[in-house]
Amino acid sequence: MSYDKRSIPTLISLDPSAPAAHQQGLHNRWHPDIPAAATVSPGQTFKLHCLDWTGGQIHNNDTADDIVAADLAQCHYLTGPVECEGARPGDVLVVDVMDVAPFPDHAWGYCGIFDINNGGGLLCDDFPVAAKAVWDLDGVYATSRHIPGVRFAGISHPVSLGIMGCAPSKELLDKWNRREAELIAENTGMVPAVAYPPTPTSAYVGTVGASTLSNDMMETIAREGARTIPPREHGGNCDIKNLSKGSRVYFPVYVNGAKFSIGDLHFSQGDGELTFCAHNRLQAGVVTLRFTVIKDGMKKLSMDSPIYLPSVVDPKYATQVTFQGISVDSDGKQYSMNATIAYKQAARAAIEYLHSLGYTKEQAYLLMSCAPIEARVASIVDHPNASVTIGIPTEIFDRDIRPDAVVAAFDSGVLKRDYGARHATTTKRA
Amino acid sequence: MSYDKRSIPTLISLDPSAPAAHQQGLHNRWHPDIPAAATVSPGQTFKLHCLDWTGGQIHNNDTADDIVAADLAQCHYLTGPVECEGARPGDVLVVDVMDVAPFPDHAWGYCGIFDINNGGGLLCDDFPVAAKAVWDLDGVYATSRHIPGVRFAGISHPVSLGIMGCAPSKELLDKWNRREAELIAENTGMVPAVAYPPTPTSAYVGTVGASTLSNDMMETIAREGARTIPPREHGGNCDIKNLSKGSRVYFPVYVNGAKFSIGDLHFSQGDGELTFCAHNRLQAGVVTLRFTVIKDGMKKLSMDSPIYLPSVVDPKYATQVTFQGISVDSDGKQYSMNATIAYKQAARAAIEYLHSLGYTKEQAYLLMSCAPIEARVASIVDHPNASVTIGIPTEIFDRDIRPDAVVAAFDSGVLKRDYGARHATTTKRA
Amino acid sequence: MSYDKRSIPTLISLDPSAPAAHQQGLHNRWHPDIPAAATVSPGQTFKLHCLDWTGGQIHNNDTADDIVAADLAQCHYLTGPVECEGARPGDVLVVDVMDVAPFPDHAWGYCGIFDINNGGGLLCDDFPVAAKAVWDLDGVYATSRHIPGVRFAGISHPVSLGIMGCAPSKELLDKWNRREAELIAENTGMVPAVAYPPTPTSAYVGTVGASTLSNDMMETIAREGARTIPPREHGGNCDIKNLSKGSRVYFPVYVNGAKFSIGDLHFSQGDGELTFCAHNRLQAGVVTLRFTVIKDGMKKLSMDSPIYLPSVVDPKYATQVTFQGISVDSDGKQYSMNATIAYKQAARAAIEYLHSLGYTKEQAYLLMSCAPIEARVASIVDHPNASVTIGIPTEIFDRDIRPDAVVAAFDSGVLKRDYGARHATTTKRA
Amino acid sequence: MSYDKRSIPTLISLDPSAPAAHQQGLHNRWHPDIPAAATVSPGQTFKLHCLDWTGGQIHNNDTADDIVAADLAQCHYLTGPVECEGARPGDVLVVDVMDVAPFPDHAWGYCGIFDINNGGGLLCDDFPVAAKAVWDLDGVYATSRHIPGVRFAGISHPVSLGIMGCAPSKELLDKWNRREAELIAENTGMVPAVAYPPTPTSAYVGTVGASTLSNDMMETIAREGARTIPPREHGGNCDIKNLSKGSRVYFPVYVNGAKFSIGDLHFSQGDGELTFCAHNRLQAGVVTLRFTVIKDGMKKLSMDSPIYLPSVVDPKYATQVTFQGISVDSDGKQYSMNATIAYKQAARAAIEYLHSLGYTKEQAYLLMSCAPIEARVASIVDHPNASVTIGIPTEIFDRDIRPDAVVAAFDSGVLKRDYGARHATTTKRA
Repeated sequence: MSYDKRSIPTLISLDPSAPAAHQQGLHNRWHPDIPAAATVSPGQTFKLHCLDWTGGQIHNNDTADDIVAADLAQCHYLTGPVECEGARPGDVLVVDVMDVAPFPDHAWGYCGIFDINNGGGLLCDDFPVAAKAVWDLDGVYATSRHIPGVRFAGISHPVSLGIMGCAPSKELLDKWNRREAELIAENTGMVPAVAYPPTPTSAYVGTVGASTLSNDMMETIAREGARTIPPREHGGNCDIKNLSKGSRVYFPVYVNGAKFSIGDLHFSQGDGELTFCAHNRLQAGVVTLRFTVIKDGMKKLSMDSPIYLPSVVDPKYATQVTFQGISVDSDGKQYSMNATIAYKQAARAAIEYLHSLGYTKEQAYLLMSCAPIEARVASIVDHPNASVTIGIPTEIFDRDIRPDAVVAAFDSGVLKRDYGARHATTTKRA
Repeated sequence: MSYDKRSIPTLISLDPSAPAAHQQGLHNRWHPDIPAAATVSPGQTFKLHCLDWTGGQIHNNDTADDIVAADLAQCHYLTGPVECEGARPGDVLVVDVMDVAPFPDHAWGYCGIFDINNGGGLLCDDFPVAAKAVWDLDGVYATSRHIPGVRFAGISHPVSLGIMGCAPSKELLDKWNRREAELIAENTGMVPAVAYPPTPTSAYVGTVGASTLSNDMMETIAREGARTIPPREHGGNCDIKNLSKGSRVYFPVYVNGAKFSIGDLHFSQGDGELTFCAHNRLQAGVVTLRFTVIKDGMKKLSMDSPIYLPSVVDPKYATQVTFQGISVDSDGKQYSMNATIAYKQAARAAIEYLHSLGYTKEQAYLLMSCAPIEARVASIVDHPNASVTIGIPTEIFDRDIRPDAVVAAFDSGVLKRDYGARHATTTKRA
Repeated sequence: MSYDKRSIPTLISLDPSAPAAHQQGLHNRWHPDIPAAATVSPGQTFKLHCLDWTGGQIHNNDTADDIVAADLAQCHYLTGPVECEGARPGDVLVVDVMDVAPFPDHAWGYCGIFDINNGGGLLCDDFPVAAKAVWDLDGVYATSRHIPGVRFAGISHPVSLGIMGCAPSKELLDKWNRREAELIAENTGMVPAVAYPPTPTSAYVGTVGASTLSNDMMETIAREGARTIPPREHGGNCDIKNLSKGSRVYFPVYVNGAKFSIGDLHFSQGDGELTFCAHNRLQAGVVTLRFTVIKDGMKKLSMDSPIYLPSVVDPKYATQVTFQGISVDSDGKQYSMNATIAYKQAARAAIEYLHSLGYTKEQAYLLMSCAPIEARVASIVDHPNASVTIGIPTEIFDRDIRPDAVVAAFDSGVLKRDYGARHATTTKRA
Repeated sequence: MSYDKRSIPTLISLDPSAPAAHQQGLHNRWHPDIPAAATVSPGQTFKLHCLDWTGGQIHNNDTADDIVAADLAQCHYLTGPVECEGARPGDVLVVDVMDVAPFPDHAWGYCGIFDINNGGGLLCDDFPVAAKAVWDLDGVYATSRHIPGVRFAGISHPVSLGIMGCAPSKELLDKWNRREAELIAENTGMVPAVAYPPTPTSAYVGTVGASTLSNDMMETIAREGARTIPPREHGGNCDIKNLSKGSRVYFPVYVNGAKFSIGDLHFSQGDGELTFCAHNRLQAGVVTLRFTVIKDGMKKLSMDSPIYLPSVVDPKYATQVTFQGISVDSDGKQYSMNATIAYKQAARAAIEYLHSLGYTKEQAYLLMSCAPIEARVASIVDHPNASVTIGIPTEIFDRDIRPDAVVAAFDSGVLKRDYGARHATTTKRA
């Protein structure tokens, strides 16, 4: 008996150098009727290729013009759906994340500030103009020519995950569309928009082989398909900081075969993913997965949203400088228990601190979106102020950023260093 | 030369068995004119006694009637102010937390669900009725006769901190009162209230020795003094999970002498302090502190709110079961990037999970407020859904709570255990 | 029903300022016939006072003369024996270490290099002359005026343990004495001695109350009682680095009542306890313990030596500089798989490295014996060289000691700092 | 300017399915005159293929006959030497370990017990007969069909390192041969041998391209070349548990060009590498490295053996069951401060404990050699007993192995499970 061969099939292969919108096994909307691009048995380990979330619109260069021009209606290109044999609604699809790796010769990623009129970000009022930093993956570490003096480990070498989930049922999809439409109706004219409704513009389904998609069906999907931007109860854009290889995720199943999709690989991420939509993305990558099915699992686990078992492998950063934000905005306005405002304020305090070291505020903002910072809801019951803390690991800098060292450097006149203001910029506006 | 003696003076001594409102060196409002109860030089290590935040209204028994009846206008009794020699506005007061320990013979604490009409909590709509669990401190661990099957380490034996900060200047106090009054005015009639305005009811300042307080001044303090419930830019009710002994905190100074106060000691806390105001409180304790002053520190550190360096000593829990919440409420309403709703939903998912093991929902809710859970802002940029995760450490349970074990126990019919529904209850309502 | 009182009885009280040799509840030999000084039921939490291992011979001053003159035949003064009701030979005594704290006003400790003729140490050929460093316990941290520039957390604040164990049976005691006598016989004239035989000199048993000890019995104990220096299969001088509060230890029981004793409290320790017998000792302290008995536990746990469950609370130091030693001694002699030589060589490499920073070699050696270094048996199978590594945590220094920073400092001519050569010295020799 | 391409050259390519002894860029002795197989500039990232240490003699099957028959004189096949431009004696070669990965389709490894007459192991008296367990690499985890019920993370996915180092100078080589010859002379007839002298048998140097090796030179190398089994001061068989990707190692340089070699990749290892030479080996793999040179680095870093900076990425196992060994052997003989005996005794205690769960002793011994156990030198100064502890992480088992659970299972009669005694065995003897 030979045990030697352990060939892992690649169920969906992609070309990271070719346009996404002509490749098979990709789609950029959530809809139950998107046909499966591959089928796999429980217990079988398999690989999937994934492309950059924009389908390759962002480039490894020194300008942010591509960020300004990015067509976000194309986002995110997801690989799948992959049908799991035997999975039925009410079951749980257990996904073991065996490996996540960059594509050979595409071992770089980027984080970006999106123009306030094209994506924006949490602090888009402070940072309305696009900017970008490109990160090189250097073994387990990431470094950027645009943000010198920093080096950090990717989450469990070198890629964590962005979007994963099973296709919604028709009922669930309708629920999503209904509730988000109500929110949009209540907030017309907001910039950036409060939510993104279904739109046929740039909707794409790249079917595989015999599973042709009728024009009618494609129109239905384009018209109804939920956008992939937010996380929802099926998982989706979960963006969990330490969800990388070695993790196990339990997903609700809503349709026969589960129809699992995945995309938007990250190589690192700070809690909160501050700058929004263009940061710490991997250009392209390969994931290795394995499915198991728990029959009636949603009931057995009392769950209607995913449960995660993070990986046992994790970078160990021991020392943090921690900043606090409360739900009072920069203009002094008091909000009631608003953790989002509190998060913003903690982020602003951290940005000021890093700025005092010599980084541009844009560099600091970009860095905060992809370095392994920890953002915690410290307190959310003491009316009227929620309290959120952001901890920056000190070990990722090539200098001592602890307050005592900062004070000593300030007193010696050597606090502010020249980091070259080298983040990629643009003069264009969307 | 003898080095042997290292007697640490106790600057403010209290009697944990006597009523708070007749003791010296306590106050329950923030105001610049509260006279210092003690003075200390930078570099001098000193001790302070602290009482329970309610001044002893909650008892070590098996009924939640004391929670229903608690007079929250008395809260929180803070020890101080302690004047630091030489500290001036614009300086930073560095506070080294050398030790935090329970009072001898008072090594217990409690967590509680507050009545919706008297304090409430984050999930007060789900849990409108008061309940309580008492925790025994058993070496470094805490156990509760009201929530069997759980044992967890306190944060760096056995007490973390609640409230710390320097007195506001008159200008800062006015700013607080103004912005909170505006919020209250915009939200009249809310239950629970969105904020707590200054009130003379139960206002208390226990001056020390010769520093008598004129009736006029006491009236001014009672009328203007900010309530101690929320965290604010001076720190205050910071409730940071891993802020215990071994930590160093950098506080802004607003008045001459800094006038530092401290109180509301915790023995443990989950991120978010879910149930609000009565949980994981220590009955009484002793803190050991040391001050240092950084002249012009606010400028040197680019700070206008506290910066924390957490302790190097921390419990190590390696394995978590992690739940996700998004900003869609239980009734299906879609909110725009609301991390507070997302936090609630993650908490509800965790409570359901623990409930399936046999705990009452109240036990689960109480447990979530004091066990060392981690609440993280996973993503806050993917319109319209913020994503918050709550991770429960698996090692604190005397059974395996990982999903695979839960499914196996469900299949064997032994999932739900009898934990006695033993949380302390009440039939009264506020 | 009142739960409030939780008074923990102190079973054995001692006076740290009085001579050990006149106090009750102390002994400095292992023997089954030492009468119990206290009795306790399983499940009862209790306190014990402990004295310095030498009985107070070492002082908080700036000379090592006390190290030279120390009477080691007195060592170690152990508190006990404490009888556990119901424990029988073959059972396991489970000891929960609830708390370990310094005596009030005795919050200091010391580490020392012992004269080669009076105790010696692992590197006694390199360091034949006595030296000493005194450490102040400063909250959770320890600092020394004799070794500037270093601060580290004690093991789970601020005291770990030295010696614990149950009394041997007569048979076990005879076995110890026989095998050690054989070793001594094979190695006559070695300096330092290879082992310490029983000796009536300075033998001490301080009985309590009615349990008088006949002269005959005292003579027997003095003549037969095993010295307390080495660890043996009952535990004894286990010196395990992370065995502090929050730990649980399973000890074999050999005599009725178990007769547990404890002493030689440490506040910190490096793996290996390099300098031998006088380092990182606490002047005096209080331990809080609880016993449980597992009937027939030795069989159930397949054990004939202790099993440890280390505490969940531990200092987190993330970054180490790691040195390697092999079993070739400094003079070039090749040993066969000798991990002891390999450990020595790794220690010497680390000492050279620290010496290059400006520390005297004595300071480096003293530091290595009490800082939280990690000594690991990396490989012990590759003939002829065992490989041992020693990792020094970088976070305990107030400068960057990583190799890249050391090279940069060397190149700038600022590597060697003046640390004052301040370790306590002596001109005397034993 | 294009940043996109980041092609990493493979300097030495090997075929894992072909015999090692006919491939170029391999050698199995240390000698300064082995010609460089590749040359690289400092700062250039590059890849090297590595074969199994035996050159493919061990197979993925269910018999240990290959272990019995293994020709150890061939070991270890190292890849290299790689010349680093500009490196000179006295410099330090800094090696960044960027990545370590298994060969595609060879994602398995093995651990083995070697016959006492062919390799042996630390406990070869207890385990004289060959045995084997094969491990599958399953994402970041390793599992074995021969040792069920266990799963552990490889060190920073899925491969740590075995042998690395620079070629010795002629003087250093002579020193090695001289001192080891003396040891052998003092211990003739020992089984297993105390050391392995140079031997022409199976000596191999696979030169590359034009760098032909004269017969004379090959004879010299075969006659003088140091065996690769032990670690020595150049590094060599360092087998450090957490030395994997993300690590940086500082190696002494003894010859022009440094002549760095690497081999014997591991996928995991317990401290101490208990069973000796055939365990946890990877069948074949690819390493990605980068060199930097510190001129005169040996002086600047006060080093004459390697210094290691372990990776920031590491599996986090929080809970250990810890066993203690002292320097008294199983037959009761007392040794003087012998850490090797103490290590053996701790290992034996751990093996007994695992055996009580149902594992065969061979399974337990095999497991101890490759699972992430921690072996620490707890104390090495308390004459006559050194103390070594071995901690087994509890999280790697699919059952609770903590003592309380073991006692409960014993009392319920369900302690001993049937693990199938499935380790691969042999009936042959060497």
